[in-house]
Amino acid sequence: MVGTLELHPRLRGPIDVRVHHIGIERPRLLLDTIPENPGALLALGNRHVVSALQFDRELVVQLCRLAADIEVRPTLAHMPLTGKILITAFLEPSTRTRLSFESAWHRLGGDILSITDPTTTGIAKGESLADVAEMFSNYGDAVVLRDSGERSVYEMIETLRVPIINAGNGIDEHPTQALADLYTIFKWRPDLATDAPETRVRIGVIGDPGRMRTVRSLLLLLSLFAWTIEEVVVINRTDDLFDPGQREQLEQRGLKIRTATRLRPELPALDVVYINSIAWVGDTFERLTGDLQLDSDSPFKAGAIVLHPLARGAELDVSLDATRHNWYFSQARGATFLRMALLTSMVERVHRVADVKPPSKAV
Amino acid sequence: MVGTLELHPRLRGPIDVRVHHIGIERPRLLLDTIPENPGALLALGNRHVVSALQFDRELVVQLCRLAADIEVRPTLAHMPLTGKILITAFLEPSTRTRLSFESAWHRLGGDILSITDPTTTGIAKGESLADVAEMFSNYGDAVVLRDSGERSVYEMIETLRVPIINAGNGIDEHPTQALADLYTIFKWRPDLATDAPETRVRIGVIGDPGRMRTVRSLLLLLSLFAWTIEEVVVINRTDDLFDPGQREQLEQRGLKIRTATRLRPELPALDVVYINSIAWVGDTFERLTGDLQLDSDSPFKAGAIVLHPLARGAELDVSLDATRHNWYFSQARGATFLRMALLTSMVERVHRVADVKPPSKAV
Amino acid sequence: MVGTLELHPRLRGPIDVRVHHIGIERPRLLLDTIPENPGALLALGNRHVVSALQFDRELVVQLCRLAADIEVRPTLAHMPLTGKILITAFLEPSTRTRLSFESAWHRLGGDILSITDPTTTGIAKGESLADVAEMFSNYGDAVVLRDSGERSVYEMIETLRVPIINAGNGIDEHPTQALADLYTIFKWRPDLATDAPETRVRIGVIGDPGRMRTVRSLLLLLSLFAWTIEEVVVINRTDDLFDPGQREQLEQRGLKIRTATRLRPELPALDVVYINSIAWVGDTFERLTGDLQLDSDSPFKAGAIVLHPLARGAELDVSLDATRHNWYFSQARGATFLRMALLTSMVERVHRVADVKPPSKAV
Repeated sequence: MVGTLELHPRLRGPIDVRVHHIGIERPRLLLDTIPENPGALLALGNRHVVSALQFDRELVVQLCRLAADIEVRPTLAHMPLTGKILITAFLEPSTRTRLSFESAWHRLGGDILSITDPTTTGIAKGESLADVAEMFSNYGDAVVLRDSGERSVYEMIETLRVPIINAGNGIDEHPTQALADLYTIFKWRPDLATDAPETRVRIGVIGDPGRMRTVRSLLLLLSLFAWTIEEVVVINRTDDLFDPGQREQLEQRGLKIRTATRLRPELPALDVVYINSIAWVGDTFERLTGDLQLDSDSPFKAGAIVLHPLARGAELDVSLDATRHNWYFSQARGATFLRMALLTSMVERVHRVADVKPPSKAV
Repeated sequence: MVGTLELHPRLRGPIDVRVHHIGIERPRLLLDTIPENPGALLALGNRHVVSALQFDRELVVQLCRLAADIEVRPTLAHMPLTGKILITAFLEPSTRTRLSFESAWHRLGGDILSITDPTTTGIAKGESLADVAEMFSNYGDAVVLRDSGERSVYEMIETLRVPIINAGNGIDEHPTQALADLYTIFKWRPDLATDAPETRVRIGVIGDPGRMRTVRSLLLLLSLFAWTIEEVVVINRTDDLFDPGQREQLEQRGLKIRTATRLRPELPALDVVYINSIAWVGDTFERLTGDLQLDSDSPFKAGAIVLHPLARGAELDVSLDATRHNWYFSQARGATFLRMALLTSMVERVHRVADVKPPSKAV
Repeated sequence: MVGTLELHPRLRGPIDVRVHHIGIERPRLLLDTIPENPGALLALGNRHVVSALQFDRELVVQLCRLAADIEVRPTLAHMPLTGKILITAFLEPSTRTRLSFESAWHRLGGDILSITDPTTTGIAKGESLADVAEMFSNYGDAVVLRDSGERSVYEMIETLRVPIINAGNGIDEHPTQALADLYTIFKWRPDLATDAPETRVRIGVIGDPGRMRTVRSLLLLLSLFAWTIEEVVVINRTDDLFDPGQREQLEQRGLKIRTATRLRPELPALDVVYINSIAWVGDTFERLTGDLQLDSDSPFKAGAIVLHPLARGAELDVSLDATRHNWYFSQARGATFLRMALLTSMVERVHRVADVKPPSKAV
């Protein structure tokens, strides 16, 4: 069989920790650049996080700063969420996002109740989401919900008494993915989180703002930093990409948007290339194809970074992994630290990880 | 999309903790009324909990008292189950009951191994329940089992060396649900747990004692407090409701039982209305219909309370939620505290949460 | 119903902890016989465990010694894996092995992220195992993988940056089961782990070395102790049992192997009888039948022990459970302690449970 007659080379000694992609110096750079203001995070106390519309600039910046602060520490001195229980309800299955949230919560010292299979829930028996929310309020201190329907999270907040995070509601939003995207961008260029960026950047977004939740939430957050962005180029096969009112809203918030149908001609001018694999259409998806692909031979601008929320399809070739354009692995890793910062803020425990007064009275 | 062009009102600030249904003053009332006697709980040490027949009056009362004691504390000073492992084996899927038990165990400081999908167990490969019990005895300190078969829990106790809780065995029993029901009733009227109730109560049970496990267990526990109960009216479409010998047994234990086929004429005289949605027939169920429904316009007696083990169907209209008859949400919430009291007793850790001597030698 | 008219005898009092199979004196005997050398375990630090080929004699012996040391302690004084996260990825479902690993990790103080249903993973969407390994490296501190494919674990170690345990890869290997088998044998006869065994033993292996992962790994580990083994008799219906080169490799390592097609004539001369129920053929299995069965009337040698990795089929009759030949229950129980020793070593925490210096710098 595979390795029983001769031992596989990788099994002959300790793990060779190869290229660590993007190292610890990046969050340090972010910490050095952004002034500490953890008080801004108190605004998240006992609040739901459903839409990227809920965030202002300082909140995003301070979340990223706290994430960086956590990322550079070897371990947390005190577990801020000891005794707290998270309910992860993945009614639309997802391993990657679930593990990221559960890893974040456990690293903060909390316990978890998981729902990974919707067919085992009362919801399958026809129970209303309002009743499920009542149940969750009794058994947990916070909820992470993913569902293929856009309305589910909005139905739950009608009765929910503990904070919920929208971890993807159909084709609508996925705000914590967008926060993790910005955390990655700010680790790459901390000056973009300040009033005075060194240079403005051109960002390419390969995807569909009206049908991809990650793209929708990302554009909303990017619009909070519009003065740092030369232009966002939305690239897809057609240019019928926006929901009614969506593009106008983003432009009103200051974002300069252009659409394009071919990627290669745009690439040499892009500082950030955000690519996504999955175009949700109801419960199914179609893959991007043809010109909308990246590999190590693509005509990147020097120093350009590539982001991808993963899992990837053929649009992101593995030949890119070993290049310096690969920031998508750093993005995946950083998502956990960003979620640690967010969760700690939502359950009113910022004072246990940052220098700020506790809320006078937690509800 | 849903909330991206305009922010949903509930997302504009902290969670509005609306009506908390039944407040903290209720368990306080129970604590003030019932004399402390935690020694009674030592009888549960290292014992299985399979049938409501196992309980005597003082045990039920002291479990409810300890549950109340836990409910009124902000947090437990010491986690009594640190280092203990619970196995939750839901061979018949259920989210609500599983989350309640897992929340209870985590709040006591313990860890959990979950089986939520019977197709992933050895049982699917034809392994005997005696062998599964042997396995569970090695890997956990206690077991919670739900199964659609009546015999499974009895097969497991043949070889199990750690305590098991029957969390529903087919149409047979569900004793911890019944304990949670009594906890709710005693929070409402603590005098019913004493020798001298102020007045006796009339309890309506809409359901099927011979085919509903929750009803079967509830009637057994109610019979321990027969002197406080004017009458139990069992209401259903037919009056062929009892198993052979079941009604006679309850009457021997002192319960006065009457059957009725219509709900509305009975309602104005009922102090407690216990309604259930699901009539198990093998693996399927039929819903109660027609006259057997409650809403805010139903002719309740003043001060009457409504209980329901949830999840609900059409028999319990949401218009009742905002009324003072709604004690079913308190019932669901209290179930966790009751289970905390029970689990702590079963794994011989009462002395860590109440003033009682530890067992001289835990087995 | 089952037990509501009359209480089941087993429910009338505390659990009768019947025959504890093999008691605590066995690991004590092992501790007394084997000299302490925990430094040998440092070789496992930050290493994958995929094949039995990775182990040398002293490593196996010291792992068994540490397992015994853990087994005899009432509880661990310090939880060596506090704050560490294990990912259990059972892409081929298994309850028994998953619970054993999860129980081991929890008893060491760590937290767990479980994947019990492969259809909920990105793998089902076509994500590569290299990308899954990248994800696991971000979210956990160690991984346990079971998969029906032989290659999966080898694909993951190409990119994985945290230690992985192969908990069964198709028909290839299952090294921790084999370690647990040796732990059982050494508890029975600690002298077999020394240079000078009192007597050599004859071991019967009923199974298929080329198609059963447990047997393949066991034979490799047994060959490390060849001087203690008179002979291994591999018993099956045919004698076409080995992969090309497999038997030659074992014989080169010093093991004396004979094959036989009937069990009963061999039994009276066997000291150890290892029997296995399941012959994997791709994703399905065939049961052993006919002569290849054991029960309490089988012609065992006096003092012979029976091992079985469980779950069992008809080949291992329950009439054997109450006999002194039953060491398979001890084997199942001990597997958790063996895995505790192994996991602690792999994540570089041996110094927290044994008297050895910590690694100067954990990677």
